[in-house]
Amino acid sequence: MVEKGLLIVLSGPSGVGKGTVRKAIFDRPDTAFEYSISMTTRNPREGEIHGVDYFFKSRDEFEALIEQGKLLEYAEFVGNYYGTPVDYVRETLDSGKDVFLEIEVQGARQVREKFPEGLFIFLAPPSLTELENRITTRGTETEELIRQRMKAAKEEIELMDLYDYVVENDRVENACERINAIVIAEHCRRERVTHRYKTMLESE
Amino acid sequence: MVEKGLLIVLSGPSGVGKGTVRKAIFDRPDTAFEYSISMTTRNPREGEIHGVDYFFKSRDEFEALIEQGKLLEYAEFVGNYYGTPVDYVRETLDSGKDVFLEIEVQGARQVREKFPEGLFIFLAPPSLTELENRITTRGTETEELIRQRMKAAKEEIELMDLYDYVVENDRVENACERINAIVIAEHCRRERVTHRYKTMLESE
Repeated sequence: MVEKGLLIVLSGPSGVGKGTVRKAIFDRPDTAFEYSISMTTRNPREGEIHGVDYFFKSRDEFEALIEQGKLLEYAEFVGNYYGTPVDYVRETLDSGKDVFLEIEVQGARQVREKFPEGLFIFLAPPSLTELENRITTRGTETEELIRQRMKAAKEEIELMDLYDYVVENDRVENACERINAIVIAEHCRRERVTHRYKTMLESE
Repeated sequence: MVEKGLLIVLSGPSGVGKGTVRKAIFDRPDTAFEYSISMTTRNPREGEIHGVDYFFKSRDEFEALIEQGKLLEYAEFVGNYYGTPVDYVRETLDSGKDVFLEIEVQGARQVREKFPEGLFIFLAPPSLTELENRITTRGTETEELIRQRMKAAKEEIELMDLYDYVVENDRVENACERINAIVIAEHCRRERVTHRYKTMLESE
């Protein structure tokens, strides 16, 4: 019996640097998980390759896949669909490999409903810590600026509540380091390890 | 307000290599946690230094500390007491630093009762995986040998149930790597991170 892989979902507010962190993770030689390539109806940009950067589909094809329940999550942005093909994710997990998704927060919410056992990582802007420093040390900011930042911070913190881990993207290397650590740690969780041994002993 | 440190407890069956792994962790330049030095009534061995290897105490002193509730955990082995002074642990955690304990399984049980929020790591012998391989691939072992090994494995797995993580000590460097990853990951847990931000925002 092969132990199922982990589904790792990296998400966070737009502009936080999810794509950059994801690329840096897959540039590391020791990364042992598989990247789930998204599907989109937007046109390929210069240099983008079908099956590497995205699976490029027509609108009709995409909508047919939605109807057939073939998408783990999807969303529409500025007139184009983006989504995650579910078959690849299930097959890879079943083969014992970890799968890595990098998606928007709405998509992460959809995945959580279908894969509650996934590993949900929120990439947080360092502005939260900066805000914390400013509040703690006080400063010369205007009341209005502080108030705006507090409001934005509150909204980001509320988004986090769906996630298992929060990784601050202060520097790309640090964020990668923490994400790798989280995956290593999750593979050592007692429930996961003893389940494997218990199944083995019972099968005798 | 300083965020409290994590209490990291490394334990496991005797002979598994807890001391070796602990020394290797504290030899790493990037280790950011504090080692809690144990107290003992046994005589110092050649080269051992009071306050570095152990705090050496007389039997009367040790028993007085037990009565005053000054020990987080203690046990008696071959006529000598061994224990963990509680004040150092509490003060270090309160100052925001992580504290690392390396103790026997009975001690870990006592600590779990007093610090249920601690991070309990079970160091497991690689024999469990070896056993798994032998069972899975079948082999030329006698029935009796397999039966004995299964019994020992079952006992080890039952011990694990108290712990949050299981780290296999296949190689010392691997075990250190996993323990460090677990500590990094735990610092990224959402409850811990959002609690910090929520407290900060509410205190305004």
